Amino acid sequence: MSNESETPSSVSDPPQPEQSQAEDESKSVSKKAAKKEAAKLEKLRRRQEAALASSAASLSVEEDDLLAANYGDVPLPELQSKTPADVRSWTEVGSLNEALKDQYVLVRGRAQTIRPVSKNMAFVVVREKGFTLQCVVTATPDVVSRLMVKFVSGVNRESIVDVEGIVSVPKDPITGATQQVEIQVRKFYCVNKAVPNLPINIEDAARSDIEFEKAKQAGEQAVQVHQDTRLDNRVIDIRTPANQGIFRIQCQVGTVFRQFFLSEGFVEIHTPKLIAGSSEGGASVFKLDYKGQPACLAQSPQLHKQMAICGDFGRVFEIGPVFRAENSFTHRHLCEFTGLDVEMEIKNHYFEVMDIVDRLFVAMFDSLTKNCVKELEAVSRQYPFEPLKYLRKTLRLTFEEGVQMLKDAGVEVDPLGDLNTESERKLGKLVLEKYGTEFYILHRYPLAVRPFYTMPCYDNPAYSNSFDVFIRGEEIISGAQRVHVPELLAERAQACGIDVNTISTYIDSFRYGAPPHGGFGVGLERVVMLFCGLNNIRKTSLFPRDPNRIAP
Amino acid sequence: MSNESETPSSVSDPPQPEQSQAEDESKSVSKKAAKKEAAKLEKLRRRQEAALASSAASLSVEEDDLLAANYGDVPLPELQSKTPADVRSWTEVGSLNEALKDQYVLVRGRAQTIRPVSKNMAFVVVREKGFTLQCVVTATPDVVSRLMVKFVSGVNRESIVDVEGIVSVPKDPITGATQQVEIQVRKFYCVNKAVPNLPINIEDAARSDIEFEKAKQAGEQAVQVHQDTRLDNRVIDIRTPANQGIFRIQCQVGTVFRQFFLSEGFVEIHTPKLIAGSSEGGASVFKLDYKGQPACLAQSPQLHKQMAICGDFGRVFEIGPVFRAENSFTHRHLCEFTGLDVEMEIKNHYFEVMDIVDRLFVAMFDSLTKNCVKELEAVSRQYPFEPLKYLRKTLRLTFEEGVQMLKDAGVEVDPLGDLNTESERKLGKLVLEKYGTEFYILHRYPLAVRPFYTMPCYDNPAYSNSFDVFIRGEEIISGAQRVHVPELLAERAQACGIDVNTISTYIDSFRYGAPPHGGFGVGLERVVMLFCGLNNIRKTSLFPRDPNRIAP
Repeated sequence: MSNESETPSSVSDPPQPEQSQAEDESKSVSKKAAKKEAAKLEKLRRRQEAALASSAASLSVEEDDLLAANYGDVPLPELQSKTPADVRSWTEVGSLNEALKDQYVLVRGRAQTIRPVSKNMAFVVVREKGFTLQCVVTATPDVVSRLMVKFVSGVNRESIVDVEGIVSVPKDPITGATQQVEIQVRKFYCVNKAVPNLPINIEDAARSDIEFEKAKQAGEQAVQVHQDTRLDNRVIDIRTPANQGIFRIQCQVGTVFRQFFLSEGFVEIHTPKLIAGSSEGGASVFKLDYKGQPACLAQSPQLHKQMAICGDFGRVFEIGPVFRAENSFTHRHLCEFTGLDVEMEIKNHYFEVMDIVDRLFVAMFDSLTKNCVKELEAVSRQYPFEPLKYLRKTLRLTFEEGVQMLKDAGVEVDPLGDLNTESERKLGKLVLEKYGTEFYILHRYPLAVRPFYTMPCYDNPAYSNSFDVFIRGEEIISGAQRVHVPELLAERAQACGIDVNTISTYIDSFRYGAPPHGGFGVGLERVVMLFCGLNNIRKTSLFPRDPNRIAP
Repeated sequence: MSNESETPSSVSDPPQPEQSQAEDESKSVSKKAAKKEAAKLEKLRRRQEAALASSAASLSVEEDDLLAANYGDVPLPELQSKTPADVRSWTEVGSLNEALKDQYVLVRGRAQTIRPVSKNMAFVVVREKGFTLQCVVTATPDVVSRLMVKFVSGVNRESIVDVEGIVSVPKDPITGATQQVEIQVRKFYCVNKAVPNLPINIEDAARSDIEFEKAKQAGEQAVQVHQDTRLDNRVIDIRTPANQGIFRIQCQVGTVFRQFFLSEGFVEIHTPKLIAGSSEGGASVFKLDYKGQPACLAQSPQLHKQMAICGDFGRVFEIGPVFRAENSFTHRHLCEFTGLDVEMEIKNHYFEVMDIVDRLFVAMFDSLTKNCVKELEAVSRQYPFEPLKYLRKTLRLTFEEGVQMLKDAGVEVDPLGDLNTESERKLGKLVLEKYGTEFYILHRYPLAVRPFYTMPCYDNPAYSNSFDVFIRGEEIISGAQRVHVPELLAERAQACGIDVNTISTYIDSFRYGAPPHGGFGVGLERVVMLFCGLNNIRKTSLFPRDPNRIAP
């Protein structure tokens, strides 16, 4: 521990990091500072003592309500690790079901909606991790007081509450909550109060477009929460069931990705994001000053993952942030996203890389379908989508075949150019019609539209040993065999108009013996977006960064 | 696919990323450019045709050696995915053992050392992923020609070679290679040539200090490779068995970390590294320009992981880069490292967080010991170390107890200050002597030495609900319960001299209902360094970044 106590000093500056790295010499606090600190602590101590005293008082029986200990605001000291770690047993909202009928349970969650019915009764929907539970507070002599019903009725939405009570199973299905049991409340405490006026309400944020239209037509008061409002208040927005689902699906994508590659003998690596030099092109990299040297943020781990291959790791992968300073205002571009990168030795053919892509994604789609049932349902309720159609063995088409399919359908594209978004979408539709899949690989791209380090085809250098992969007509992966021969790499760079001197570090990496190799890169957010048929990549980034947004 | 063909234009600029994000509108190549491209392709085509022809020739039988097809340089077209993906079966060097005796195998690796014995015989040690294999080339009528022995003898070290031959088991143990079998070579091809003069030799880079001293005393020519030379030539340096071991151990640490947290119901998140604002303190953050707005690189995911907790994820973890612009020139500080970050709701007590730390690390140490036997041996051969001593149930001492132990040993430290590196080391020794463990938790730190967002102890606000964790006397983790009440958070910030207006975004996150929570951060490189008893964190970072180094 060293500089933990330093202080952030600007609006959005992150609080001090936990794991400090400062010089250890400057640790000791001076005597003057110590005195000042002592005075501050004395003040804090007095304040806490008063709080402790009032805490004791508020938990004791009050004169006007003999049942006052069963509800109320939990005083701060009770939440400051006063109670031992293992004293009570908690039940998760998502795990509550009919099997627990008549049991006494303790739940912590948010008061999503509070509906007072009378002075004797109130309903509270408690939410935890996107799952909701109906709680009934009924005034009952010697059990629940009217003052308790009043207290519950006055709790602000989204406050954190502890609810204790008995599980009951109502006759009719519960429509206002995910769990099909109720809690007959015995004790109800507010752990942490939300402000009374929230910037957005969860019900509004969780409503589908269809529900919004229905509500509007029924003349109900329904607020539609727009994207920027959501993102400005992301800490509330991510509480919706759909968002809880999206980021749990994202977690599962990463998990399957890792498990697959580890089981195939790949090594997970971590390459630097701080890269020396600054791009003269400039538009697409974030530049910064590194201790007086020009530097930039890595646009991909391309160089370093190839170096890891030259460094004998055989097969590597990385999951990490990727930075693009492009001014792209589309539904599928971000300035910072999570890259899933892979690089591997090739023994004979770039199909070895495509084989990996094939097996990885079939395994991933299978796993998501099987292990994320609740999450996919939650997403689908707010953003309806059809399950992805994919084959057990992934379809592979050559670029030439793709161009021909487009041509046959009356779409003319440059046979040695690239496909634009529109052509890609169109081809996606044609492939779906003909082959019944929304996931396929297009390979043998024209050399001219790939980076200089792409290996040309052995039989026709107008084409390259490269591929793109599509989900629902949108690109999610680019991959290729790389040029591993330094002389050819220099020649290709030159042919592409690059000053070879400026990339000598890169080319030199291949002079000490380089195996034939290839790899690919995937965007995590795109995979989740397209698997779930979502319309905007901002929905699948926890705190998205685009040319207009760098907060929260 | 869109801007893949853009070109990097500075020395250390990364090559173009695979997964493009440019506007899709600018895709089509103009006609002029197309013509130019066609001319370039024609040139490349002619060059490749010539190569193909010469490839055919070089593989055919030459007049002066009827066995010429059994060796030689593999021509480029053969490596350009000419051969189908599944044509031959390869054996990994590390898997070769006596069970394969008399079998014909095919191996790809590096020619680590080439030792011609005579015109009729040469030994080649072939290395793959740190494992080495002795290959014997013996001139034999109708099988191996003298010209083949000559060819093998002339291969440059570290070149990539394909070796085919029969597995044999020599009478005496093999000392010059890890595998205890030999290959009686039948075919030998050079896949990719290394330059004849390498900046460093693997044998030099792989030598332990003891071996170096022995060699020197024996009057042998032994070059000691210094840290900067290693790092300047990292692509060669990481090929040593010890380095192959270190980064496989690092991968295992990350794997155990993830598996543990996923099994405990944590969600893996990815938070942004680009943060709005710029620190006025300035020394410890990297600043950059974000589309005209001041921004900086995240020093930790502290704010965003806490926001994820306020956003109902319950328990989260993240593995990602962490940036520190500090001018720290110590053995344990980097400007960029891999942070393992955790944040979780607390029901009653900050011990719940410490319980997780306890179980995580015992599981991790067990797993490393069990699953990384070869890797730990490889590290230990070059950098000898004693296995880490740790208890089944991790020792917990309060800060006060630690201070008392130091006092009893004659070391005076400020009871409300922090421990410096020297005191931490001393305490580590005392703990080892008294409790027999090199891994322990020190908790209830003085509030004054922790960040403002640390929860004070309920019974004495001079202390806090916080902890550090130590391996071999060095800190690897800081953790704590956080202040989840916005009013107290503001008060604590103010008491620490922070202008509350500058951190309003952070404080506001807690106004919409925040559960009590806590967490911790670990440095991946530190865990590996200290588990393996290494003396410098640069050894456990694949491409380290420190105040003087931003390349390669």
